[in-house]
Amino acid sequence: MMTRRVLVLHGPNLNMLGRREAAIYGDDTLDDINAALTSLARELQCELRFAQSNCEGALIDAIQKSFGWAEGILINPGAFTHYSYALRDAVADARIPTVEVHLSNIYAREAFRHTSVISPVATGQITGLGMDSYLLGLRAVRALLDRQ
Amino acid sequence: MMTRRVLVLHGPNLNMLGRREAAIYGDDTLDDINAALTSLARELQCELRFAQSNCEGALIDAIQKSFGWAEGILINPGAFTHYSYALRDAVADARIPTVEVHLSNIYAREAFRHTSVISPVATGQITGLGMDSYLLGLRAVRALLDRQ
Amino acid sequence: MMTRRVLVLHGPNLNMLGRREAAIYGDDTLDDINAALTSLARELQCELRFAQSNCEGALIDAIQKSFGWAEGILINPGAFTHYSYALRDAVADARIPTVEVHLSNIYAREAFRHTSVISPVATGQITGLGMDSYLLGLRAVRALLDRQ
Amino acid sequence: MMTRRVLVLHGPNLNMLGRREAAIYGDDTLDDINAALTSLARELQCELRFAQSNCEGALIDAIQKSFGWAEGILINPGAFTHYSYALRDAVADARIPTVEVHLSNIYAREAFRHTSVISPVATGQITGLGMDSYLLGLRAVRALLDRQ
Amino acid sequence: MMTRRVLVLHGPNLNMLGRREAAIYGDDTLDDINAALTSLARELQCELRFAQSNCEGALIDAIQKSFGWAEGILINPGAFTHYSYALRDAVADARIPTVEVHLSNIYAREAFRHTSVISPVATGQITGLGMDSYLLGLRAVRALLDRQ
Amino acid sequence: MMTRRVLVLHGPNLNMLGRREAAIYGDDTLDDINAALTSLARELQCELRFAQSNCEGALIDAIQKSFGWAEGILINPGAFTHYSYALRDAVADARIPTVEVHLSNIYAREAFRHTSVISPVATGQITGLGMDSYLLGLRAVRALLDRQ
Amino acid sequence: MMTRRVLVLHGPNLNMLGRREAAIYGDDTLDDINAALTSLARELQCELRFAQSNCEGALIDAIQKSFGWAEGILINPGAFTHYSYALRDAVADARIPTVEVHLSNIYAREAFRHTSVISPVATGQITGLGMDSYLLGLRAVRALLDRQ
Amino acid sequence: MMTRRVLVLHGPNLNMLGRREAAIYGDDTLDDINAALTSLARELQCELRFAQSNCEGALIDAIQKSFGWAEGILINPGAFTHYSYALRDAVADARIPTVEVHLSNIYAREAFRHTSVISPVATGQITGLGMDSYLLGLRAVRALLDRQ
Amino acid sequence: MMTRRVLVLHGPNLNMLGRREAAIYGDDTLDDINAALTSLARELQCELRFAQSNCEGALIDAIQKSFGWAEGILINPGAFTHYSYALRDAVADARIPTVEVHLSNIYAREAFRHTSVISPVATGQITGLGMDSYLLGLRAVRALLDRQ
Amino acid sequence: MMTRRVLVLHGPNLNMLGRREAAIYGDDTLDDINAALTSLARELQCELRFAQSNCEGALIDAIQKSFGWAEGILINPGAFTHYSYALRDAVADARIPTVEVHLSNIYAREAFRHTSVISPVATGQITGLGMDSYLLGLRAVRALLDRQ
Amino acid sequence: MMTRRVLVLHGPNLNMLGRREAAIYGDDTLDDINAALTSLARELQCELRFAQSNCEGALIDAIQKSFGWAEGILINPGAFTHYSYALRDAVADARIPTVEVHLSNIYAREAFRHTSVISPVATGQITGLGMDSYLLGLRAVRALLDRQ
Amino acid sequence: MMTRRVLVLHGPNLNMLGRREAAIYGDDTLDDINAALTSLARELQCELRFAQSNCEGALIDAIQKSFGWAEGILINPGAFTHYSYALRDAVADARIPTVEVHLSNIYAREAFRHTSVISPVATGQITGLGMDSYLLGLRAVRALLDRQ
Repeated sequence: MMTRRVLVLHGPNLNMLGRREAAIYGDDTLDDINAALTSLARELQCELRFAQSNCEGALIDAIQKSFGWAEGILINPGAFTHYSYALRDAVADARIPTVEVHLSNIYAREAFRHTSVISPVATGQITGLGMDSYLLGLRAVRALLDRQ
Repeated sequence: MMTRRVLVLHGPNLNMLGRREAAIYGDDTLDDINAALTSLARELQCELRFAQSNCEGALIDAIQKSFGWAEGILINPGAFTHYSYALRDAVADARIPTVEVHLSNIYAREAFRHTSVISPVATGQITGLGMDSYLLGLRAVRALLDRQ
Repeated sequence: MMTRRVLVLHGPNLNMLGRREAAIYGDDTLDDINAALTSLARELQCELRFAQSNCEGALIDAIQKSFGWAEGILINPGAFTHYSYALRDAVADARIPTVEVHLSNIYAREAFRHTSVISPVATGQITGLGMDSYLLGLRAVRALLDRQ
Repeated sequence: MMTRRVLVLHGPNLNMLGRREAAIYGDDTLDDINAALTSLARELQCELRFAQSNCEGALIDAIQKSFGWAEGILINPGAFTHYSYALRDAVADARIPTVEVHLSNIYAREAFRHTSVISPVATGQITGLGMDSYLLGLRAVRALLDRQ
Repeated sequence: MMTRRVLVLHGPNLNMLGRREAAIYGDDTLDDINAALTSLARELQCELRFAQSNCEGALIDAIQKSFGWAEGILINPGAFTHYSYALRDAVADARIPTVEVHLSNIYAREAFRHTSVISPVATGQITGLGMDSYLLGLRAVRALLDRQ
Repeated sequence: MMTRRVLVLHGPNLNMLGRREAAIYGDDTLDDINAALTSLARELQCELRFAQSNCEGALIDAIQKSFGWAEGILINPGAFTHYSYALRDAVADARIPTVEVHLSNIYAREAFRHTSVISPVATGQITGLGMDSYLLGLRAVRALLDRQ
Repeated sequence: MMTRRVLVLHGPNLNMLGRREAAIYGDDTLDDINAALTSLARELQCELRFAQSNCEGALIDAIQKSFGWAEGILINPGAFTHYSYALRDAVADARIPTVEVHLSNIYAREAFRHTSVISPVATGQITGLGMDSYLLGLRAVRALLDRQ
Repeated sequence: MMTRRVLVLHGPNLNMLGRREAAIYGDDTLDDINAALTSLARELQCELRFAQSNCEGALIDAIQKSFGWAEGILINPGAFTHYSYALRDAVADARIPTVEVHLSNIYAREAFRHTSVISPVATGQITGLGMDSYLLGLRAVRALLDRQ
Repeated sequence: MMTRRVLVLHGPNLNMLGRREAAIYGDDTLDDINAALTSLARELQCELRFAQSNCEGALIDAIQKSFGWAEGILINPGAFTHYSYALRDAVADARIPTVEVHLSNIYAREAFRHTSVISPVATGQITGLGMDSYLLGLRAVRALLDRQ
Repeated sequence: MMTRRVLVLHGPNLNMLGRREAAIYGDDTLDDINAALTSLARELQCELRFAQSNCEGALIDAIQKSFGWAEGILINPGAFTHYSYALRDAVADARIPTVEVHLSNIYAREAFRHTSVISPVATGQITGLGMDSYLLGLRAVRALLDRQ
Repeated sequence: MMTRRVLVLHGPNLNMLGRREAAIYGDDTLDDINAALTSLARELQCELRFAQSNCEGALIDAIQKSFGWAEGILINPGAFTHYSYALRDAVADARIPTVEVHLSNIYAREAFRHTSVISPVATGQITGLGMDSYLLGLRAVRALLDRQ
Repeated sequence: MMTRRVLVLHGPNLNMLGRREAAIYGDDTLDDINAALTSLARELQCELRFAQSNCEGALIDAIQKSFGWAEGILINPGAFTHYSYALRDAVADARIPTVEVHLSNIYAREAFRHTSVISPVATGQITGLGMDSYLLGLRAVRALLDRQ
């Protein structure tokens, strides 16, 4: 099994996880999630790079900078999910397997969260499973790369 | 780790998998998927019951009959995803962890497939990953039961 | 007062009443409701036939089989209320007084429950009164037949 | 059985009943309806107060004046059904069992009559049964008070 | 030519005409309009009764009180044009020739003024012609009565 | 009183009047209407030019050709009312008093007839009064020219 | 079997058939279609008149000129299908059996082609069958005339 | 000419034809239609299999069971036309020439009947021609198979 | 600093404040609010007139009667906020600085409360601050008058 | 550089340019525009044919007649921009580089002007630049032909 | 009275105030506003921190950095008001009294400015009062903190 | 001819041009485009400043920094076209001739790309012409400045 390189992106406000409403997002901090991902990545033989930003442009920059290095993307676009067509274009440009994840079940929340402008250009989505959304998402990226 | 009982439901036309447009749904038959799930279930210590029907009422019956036995549900509602409020009510009544899965990325297909009436009452969704949607879905159900 | 024959139909998931969310639907089981209807029917000199199904087609079959026998219909279409144009056509075909009932106030719940495709072809509707929706509904059917 | 006090409200143009299009509303005058209600009220041990007005504000005043006296409300909001959020607020403020009634089946008429802004704050609705909508409505109010 | 009796109704804020934005409504006061109508009525052999109110209920009362007397209605519903279904019902109940008039061209103003809930039950409408909307409207009512 | 020149335009299918559904449009032929207009024009000291066409372009041509001659326009755009933005532009370009008329009450017919794309650029509209819509329309044009 | 007279109308751009995108409209020219219709008409004992125009007004003229001669209409309105209310009125005025045909399946193309403003006033529609839409359409007109 | 095998499907409530509102659907029973189809099939050298069900799942089963046998489908989906995406998927899976038929002109009836979710995956549609919709539909299927 | 005269208007059901749902509107009665406004008015050198009504027409009357006296308006239109175009016209006619206030945050409540038909003609709005909405509103009116 | 042949089409009312509202369309007449285009065409080595019509059908005819001669199209569809699907089909049929131009910025005007049914089948659009829209449009057509 | 700490945020383009269209936003520069706020803060015993950015991410960063320090937020989100769900999430995460202010009456401007995605998570809003929107907003924050 | 200063702005992801889907955007890199613009600028006697950013705020900053220097703006807003009201406000604030350009025909792509929030405040737009959109756009800016 060859090592695979995966870019992990966290959108706006996710740096506040654990401080944020626990009823919706759980108690885990972003560091907890990154640690769990790192641990699973070792098992799945993946190399990870992490980026978080509250700035749409910085996330796009991160995707563009990963061109040539990243073979897959694991992205939780946060609230950018619902309107950032610029982020969507960046994901589409990358043309590599991309899995969109959400901690909460966005379809059981406010109406504006039911629509993702990222989904049509992602390979797949995993939502509503808390930190497991990320962990299963990494498994999904690995599997997609294995099947190429 | 205690054994968990999971009901696996396949909606209309999924019995035709492998015969259906391979470009969208892949080459796997429903038997292939069930076999892969059974194999993973052994690893995750889950007991599975399978049901497939083209009839909405039969799927609802299957959920109702599993009351008391099933601790989790893994469901691909097929086209019922988009309009079966009766199936939605049955899922909601079950009040156990439920993961909705789709083989294809429903958000990259026809507009009517972008809305799921099941999602708001499911715990989480996994879409667009082919057979892996099911396998990751089973992992998700197991994880949800472990965290209860 | 001549005896009148009334078909009583219960839609999907109503067989689970009493198990279902008590806050919305109350504690009565479907048997409790049928027993109360039977008791009232004796008082109102009505003969009742009951049918419940999770299958849209079975409910349509029940209506068609009642042709020639039934003089009125009392129907709680459950979730079919919101999309079953086939059930609507069956009700319209029957061309006899029909009262649509709902245990809960469907106008105070999710948006999709605010629209009934059955109502335009029913004679009247009674909603939000728990088991009394059924009992008043039977009185309504009897009164409609008396006034013919 | 203790006596119960019920406010009966008739909205705009209902004072013209019997003069109005008989095909839709029947031949009964408002006096006929009030007489029938009074008669049934005796049987159900209810005390009634009646009010009719073409003025939205007068109906709201009537509800407010009944505070402390009325234990239930029976209301046919007439055309206010479709836009009077002020009347809706008054009904909601009353916080007592309220049954909304309509003589005709509003769901089988013009599109603007399909939506009631009162329904979400009423306990239940009865529509399409002519004068029986009122009579069953009074039974419903009585039953709601008995079950409290 | 027999004398005809016509009810002339002015809706909310029309008592302020002449004070109101001259660019839209012109300089004429309501008294000016009524005087011009009275003068034309003499020529057309019509007897007129006038009513103006800012209260929807008072306008409905005026229509109901005119039953038996009025043979035609000339009505400028003012802002009630756009939402008063109660007024619409009163006009429909009257079942006599009714002409709806507006001083300004409501189709060239704010979007909410483009829809009249009164129009579907009026016989005809005249808009955008200032005081002439009223005068031509009276001619129209007279002509409708002559052609009956 | 100086003589005024008015262009009278009839849209598609109006040449068939009298043959068309009498219940909606009455028995008058287009010749009857033009004759009545000519007669009234003499009384009002107006000079008329008539044009009818089933072709949108021909109606626009007629308006353009009248530039310099016509001081007012009386137009029944027929079905072009609902979609001919080209005709609307021609009317707007004319920049002279324009009254739009309709034989029937377009607001009491099919939904597509409730919107006029011509109205926002006309001075006023008269609808629902049969041939009187035209006659009152001519009076309106004359009055508009007198008040200039 | 008596001979029947049928007007055959082809809307805009249909004169270019065969030159137009073959994938959608097939290789047949309009002459090929007319020849096939003529041949079938002989078999069905129908007399045909053909008209094609890119001008909406010319098509309406053709319908009006056929009054008194034509007993049925076979019409492919081309792109006028989607917005020509004037053509619709002409078809409705004709008050004879009318079958609307389309070479392609308009429901499988761009969204604007999914709505026909002609269909509500036609007797029936046949779509998606290439030249056979016309041939079956002629059979349909003949059958409608036979059943009158 | 080789024999062709065609599956003929009738949706919900069509078994009641002839009992149903004759004004809309005509007097023919389903047996009459099937007999007429059988007779025409002999002429066109087609072998037919018939199925009718009020149950969506049974119709899907019928399509699936015909795989390998049927070369074409003639389907009147009844009320399923307007919402059964599951039936649509079954039709699309079949990947054989399919003609959708309707007895009545669905575009001249209630708004919900104007949309077919089946049409985009059918080859063509024939509507509004009573029993002839079926007969012409069979001709269309035969022609589609001949042109393959 | 010269004294300024301000009309304070309270819409329907606001006379019930303090009795109404405390969670949304707080414990203050309308008398408490008026007293606090009176006290602040003294500090800001304003003279106040108060009016409350459940009747739309009475509120319009109050505005019209204040013409010539009032230099500013402070208005909580209650539920009329969402549909009373008549009240809007009265506010617009007044042509003096007007501040619209709401006790609760109308944008965090039911969807129908998110739209104010009054706002476009008011100078400014203050919402969600309980009694402080009124107090800050009075400060705003004073400031607007000072800056004229 | 080889000579290229370009069809220049002007839609309805554009023959009135210079007479039309100068604030929106400028002072140039259509002759001025055609002269400027002719002059630029010489520079760019293009041969031009001009057509203007108020009739949709005549513009379609002009496109069809240019088949075989024209290598590119420069079109200002005027008001047909917003609804002429027939013109759109003609442009699409031409299958040659087509540039749509508008004198004014249609996106800064009435809402109905924001949508072009021509744009999806044109190669490119140039709007808001007055006569320069045409001149740059001709440059664009030339460039498109050069790059083929 | 204890000192309170308030974060003051200015969204995109607000740094250009005073340069921007004076008719809408007035002559005050952002420095003028901050100075006035500072002066009022002294009176109200508030400590202020100011931030302005054209970058959505920078505003979110500013909110996050204020966690633990700020007790209230005063925010003019500028054009982010209408689409920045990321900013909304940041405000919601802060869980402290927040008052949204706007210089202009956003409800009297373009349609897109009528909706605020921030309002549902703010405590209150103040709009349309120029610099006073800010000053009253600071008073409101102070009052909210005092009432906690 | 005096020299003119023009700001050239490229929105998100445009720095990846040439790497991006060639079928839609062509092979040219952003450097190629800038070089071509520079060359044309020399011919047209324009001085250019270039900026590209994936960050909305940085583009707004660039516009603000150009105040006083730039006399015109040439902008390809990339995906910000569809939602950045903040960028729109910055463009509107600049109050200098601004031409919006797009490489691809945005009206022939996904629905979300059909709407530009920038267009209503730009002077003109040029779309669908690849690199020529930019070059013609620079000509347009120059021409606009010449005509001032």
